Amino acid sequence: MNRVSQYRVVFYGLGEIGIRALRLAIGCEGISVVGAVDTDEEKIGQDLGTLAGLEQRTGIAVSANAEGVLSASGPDVVIHTTNSLIEEITPQIQGIVSAGVNCVSSAEELFHPRPDTHQQFEAIHEKAVRHGVSVLGTGVNPGYVMDGLPLFLTKTCEAVRSVKVERVVDAATRRMPLQRKVGMGLDPDEFIKLVKEHKMGHRGLLESMYSLAAGLGWDLEKVEEKVEPVVAKKRVRTEFFTVEAGQTMGMKHRGYGYRGGERVIILDLRMFVGPRQPLDRITIDGVPPIVVTVKGGIPGDDATASILIHSVPSVVDGKPGLMNLQRMPFIHTMFSQIPERSRVE
Amino acid sequence: MNRVSQYRVVFYGLGEIGIRALRLAIGCEGISVVGAVDTDEEKIGQDLGTLAGLEQRTGIAVSANAEGVLSASGPDVVIHTTNSLIEEITPQIQGIVSAGVNCVSSAEELFHPRPDTHQQFEAIHEKAVRHGVSVLGTGVNPGYVMDGLPLFLTKTCEAVRSVKVERVVDAATRRMPLQRKVGMGLDPDEFIKLVKEHKMGHRGLLESMYSLAAGLGWDLEKVEEKVEPVVAKKRVRTEFFTVEAGQTMGMKHRGYGYRGGERVIILDLRMFVGPRQPLDRITIDGVPPIVVTVKGGIPGDDATASILIHSVPSVVDGKPGLMNLQRMPFIHTMFSQIPERSRVE
Repeated sequence: MNRVSQYRVVFYGLGEIGIRALRLAIGCEGISVVGAVDTDEEKIGQDLGTLAGLEQRTGIAVSANAEGVLSASGPDVVIHTTNSLIEEITPQIQGIVSAGVNCVSSAEELFHPRPDTHQQFEAIHEKAVRHGVSVLGTGVNPGYVMDGLPLFLTKTCEAVRSVKVERVVDAATRRMPLQRKVGMGLDPDEFIKLVKEHKMGHRGLLESMYSLAAGLGWDLEKVEEKVEPVVAKKRVRTEFFTVEAGQTMGMKHRGYGYRGGERVIILDLRMFVGPRQPLDRITIDGVPPIVVTVKGGIPGDDATASILIHSVPSVVDGKPGLMNLQRMPFIHTMFSQIPERSRVE
Repeated sequence: MNRVSQYRVVFYGLGEIGIRALRLAIGCEGISVVGAVDTDEEKIGQDLGTLAGLEQRTGIAVSANAEGVLSASGPDVVIHTTNSLIEEITPQIQGIVSAGVNCVSSAEELFHPRPDTHQQFEAIHEKAVRHGVSVLGTGVNPGYVMDGLPLFLTKTCEAVRSVKVERVVDAATRRMPLQRKVGMGLDPDEFIKLVKEHKMGHRGLLESMYSLAAGLGWDLEKVEEKVEPVVAKKRVRTEFFTVEAGQTMGMKHRGYGYRGGERVIILDLRMFVGPRQPLDRITIDGVPPIVVTVKGGIPGDDATASILIHSVPSVVDGKPGLMNLQRMPFIHTMFSQIPERSRVE
């Protein structure tokens, strides 16, 4: 390993994902956990070992005072897992950046700018550049299955016409908050109403869409997003919910990106109880065509925690600013247009 | 696209792979082809458009004088595709580096150091650093299917016990030199003799092995390599060969890497006529386990040409020195050891 030494890490947010990443970090010889921030009254003052469910204590207690923790512990990087929405996390991220600390965040909206979040990205980017630190939004989805992995696969293609990503998840195997987010047990009309209020559904589909398009050098002329309930035909039970026939037992969340009047990006996320075949499948209509299947699909929360930890070196050593797949050097698509000769093949 | 402008590229070596990459480069708006080098008497003086099989001429003629071409054309990068062996290419690479030009090469032995090529790597690395340029050995195999892609997939794992990569190729679909390299039409004893003399078989399996191990932070205590002929049971025909029953119609080339007495890396390359199911399959025994299948397998030569071209920006903008997957920032494995608690899961 090319390790400089140990990375000093502060955890900011100790919900499900934060705790999973914390457990990995405590077991990782390349990381020294030096502080933790959370505003939950039940967690403040608790030892990280206890929160992580370990027998040993770490000697590090949770504090609600982010500024104090950052200045006292002198971390290289913060692992930030408080919230999905850029509006809500911006003050937190700016506080981290102002303290001169790099940041890896699981916030879905921090993964890639949408047209309506572009300004907030620019503001964070400029501040990060000014303070000489890097910020990365990442995770399994967005951040890997529907964007990073397909882009990595296009590295073998000389031309790409369209990209389709399907992710089929058995929602019954997932944690409670996720089951709630896919509408488990709701009346379908109620689900549709909550979707319209942006209170339901997967966060990050459009972020994946714009990241893919940017990686492929494509300007999308139109983007569509559709969320539908999957309705139970008979009673089904999960660990956390009992869903009666006629109620919502999950959702289909699809995104379409258009170019030249054609659908060139299709993102198809299905999360419900008992799908026949959970999987991730990436279909690249290109030269050559590529079809890749991940058996069972990449497990969501575990993979996000791993990706957060694995991202530490690239963020600490990265160029100052707000990173994304395009600003990170592992994707390089030289061909923004399909050459004419390929169209006729 | 984040393009600075056009990359000025010289082609060094205009065999099968070089010509494929050249065709892509001519069609790529981000690249300007500014020169070409080959020692083949038949190619010297010819226009690149003619060699690439295009109707238009490019005004650039092939020259045998590498030094002259490099100093006259002022390229950003050379795409080098002359030979597999580090001994043979070292003078060429050093010439390119001494001219202050970056280099992307398809030479299999330049992909990753083996214990017996380590010194040559260090010499090239030091020279490249001194001249402020980057050198990268890459391609589909080694460079992608058996190393880069599996490492990219481990980014979702918190621990990895073993990695197995299978690549099954229908040799009948491949170009003539490759069919010859897998022993097509030879007497099996002759094939085995030529394998012992290193005149037969796939180049780069050990490079993939050491790259994978380095990416995972593993020191291998032992490495084994086995090459066997696949013998035809009845007469088979390809575009280039007729193979009688009892003759070689391809090969199995396997590599095993050991750690703690266990096989932790298995590379299994099968190239012969008419396999039941051509594919690439990556099986990661880890937390979580990951099984990924590429239907039909990634097409070899086309993918190598694409990867060479896609690598141009990262090499031109890269840190000076000899790059490899570990020196490139897209792979970061923080966990070199399987945590104890994962072993019992």
